[in-house]
Amino acid sequence: MKPVTLKQIAEQLNISVTTVSKALKDYPDISKKTKAMVKELAKTLNYKPNAFAVNLRTKESKTVGLIIPEIVHHFFSNVIKGIIAQAEKKGYLVIILQSNESYELEKKQIDLLLRQRVDGILISLANGSAEFHHLNEVMAQDKPLVMFDKIAKIVQCSKVIIDDRKAGYAATQHLIDTGCKRIAHFRGALLPQNSIDRFLGYKKALLDNNMPYDPSIVYICQCGDRSFEEGRENAKQLLMDHDDVDGIFINTDLVAIGAITEFNEQGVKIPEDISIVGFSNWFMSSVISPSLTTIDQPGYEMGKTAFKQLYKEIQQKKKNKAITHKQIVLDTALVKRASTK
Amino acid sequence: MKPVTLKQIAEQLNISVTTVSKALKDYPDISKKTKAMVKELAKTLNYKPNAFAVNLRTKESKTVGLIIPEIVHHFFSNVIKGIIAQAEKKGYLVIILQSNESYELEKKQIDLLLRQRVDGILISLANGSAEFHHLNEVMAQDKPLVMFDKIAKIVQCSKVIIDDRKAGYAATQHLIDTGCKRIAHFRGALLPQNSIDRFLGYKKALLDNNMPYDPSIVYICQCGDRSFEEGRENAKQLLMDHDDVDGIFINTDLVAIGAITEFNEQGVKIPEDISIVGFSNWFMSSVISPSLTTIDQPGYEMGKTAFKQLYKEIQQKKKNKAITHKQIVLDTALVKRASTK
Repeated sequence: MKPVTLKQIAEQLNISVTTVSKALKDYPDISKKTKAMVKELAKTLNYKPNAFAVNLRTKESKTVGLIIPEIVHHFFSNVIKGIIAQAEKKGYLVIILQSNESYELEKKQIDLLLRQRVDGILISLANGSAEFHHLNEVMAQDKPLVMFDKIAKIVQCSKVIIDDRKAGYAATQHLIDTGCKRIAHFRGALLPQNSIDRFLGYKKALLDNNMPYDPSIVYICQCGDRSFEEGRENAKQLLMDHDDVDGIFINTDLVAIGAITEFNEQGVKIPEDISIVGFSNWFMSSVISPSLTTIDQPGYEMGKTAFKQLYKEIQQKKKNKAITHKQIVLDTALVKRASTK
Repeated sequence: MKPVTLKQIAEQLNISVTTVSKALKDYPDISKKTKAMVKELAKTLNYKPNAFAVNLRTKESKTVGLIIPEIVHHFFSNVIKGIIAQAEKKGYLVIILQSNESYELEKKQIDLLLRQRVDGILISLANGSAEFHHLNEVMAQDKPLVMFDKIAKIVQCSKVIIDDRKAGYAATQHLIDTGCKRIAHFRGALLPQNSIDRFLGYKKALLDNNMPYDPSIVYICQCGDRSFEEGRENAKQLLMDHDDVDGIFINTDLVAIGAITEFNEQGVKIPEDISIVGFSNWFMSSVISPSLTTIDQPGYEMGKTAFKQLYKEIQQKKKNKAITHKQIVLDTALVKRASTK
């Protein structure tokens, strides 16, 4: 059974297609009786307006695009959930693409979404993204764009973030407050702003406490789909190179869980021999042994807030108003568990 | 800067809009020279065909809809990843909706996707879905529909599943083989076919091994967003009511992890006092203490396979061929870890 058309309704009632169309849209020049008749038949036949035709007329697709580095990821899947929940409230559908942390793929996906005429785009950048032509193209087309979590400072659009520097500082300060004297850092990849900021927060906390900053105990993780293994490898290397380290601030929980697994296997006691603070508060972190002290990052809230801002800008554009950009900073909190003293 | 239109290209070249449109589509009645000229200018101006207009003509949206009970879920996020990866290969975009295990929401979402004129729908049912009018409506509109994981046997469409009964049997048999004498089951909700089948596999393994089936040691979990807490609560109850139980087969890993947490806290030794087998092989299960023996369920593979089948049906429909339904059963495997002897 094919979808019912306006033409079929018109034929059955022996009136014109235009009359049917106007009746369904409550035009004042159609009689109440005709409207009631058309609407009843439309309901009976389960008539659904053709979204393409509606879109062509309103120039709205009621869809937004979302590009995210990785879906199988506790934080990002919470963000997705927040975005979808908020979009649904406003009658929007969400097209989701995964960039796999690849800049090339991200560029292609932006292009795909623009062709699809989404009403706006939400994006968290791939680690490899150092150029932003593709995002400027979105702006150039007057298409609302909101970045979240992994952002580029120089792109002029709205952003929803946490204060990564402050959170990195708090994580490191907690290690200092609980007695750690030599604190290493497993940082994220070199480009993403959030991994730079967490690192800077770590560094500042050391300096403010008159502790020397030693780049030889800063290890890099790509934090892609090898996060867990990277955590193990870095922990193993650290034990070989710097057995005087008694605390580590780690850029993301999954890497920290890899490190804990390695330390557990090698008989290194946490937190007696070494204390660990992670970042993000994955659910997993509360059930491993020992449970992980970490920074809680509000993924669901971030998704909701990002969609709300995008929606605001879509409305501004519809009313031909200038789009006003906003930078929204969400709160984080230190969650103390068994991996620190 | 608004998107470039056919009209602008036509004006710049001083030819008609029809000629521009035909040139871009390689119509034979347009000269090679004109085609080259039009294509070059279109490229220079970064012309992108209006997806709505293309859709209205081809009646294809190149989008598919996906309805999933829960996104923040290791298994389902792997399925999503598989679907998106395969869709991208074929030039399709995926609209994702989350039913939150609610039948009412699922019905609304099917309607939304039909209005949006997606080319096909992929769905894993909400726990509450016992009626299937909404799915029959999809079939009635000749819209390809593929169910995966949580399916309804009576809906006549393609399905991608695992053999839950066989897997439940294997999980229980492993407990028997490693010496368990009295085996409990934490089952899933009452309606979903997969939780029924896992339960039936458990029961059959007991009977085949001449062990009595005792309904008082079968506990129910809803397996929604309280899975972890349900695991703890059931474990606590089991210790109070049936301290002779020495093995449990648990419907899903997150519930099993809740149970392990409770047993660890109460000083019940795993696997010495009680052995546990989970289901699904979440990443988390490999890093908790003790690591969890479980059934590996191929989420990514299931997503890819479901999209492939949907794509096949979309092609059949385009060619006006009859759509052939298929039931595809993917393999599972028992992953032995430290929670069983």
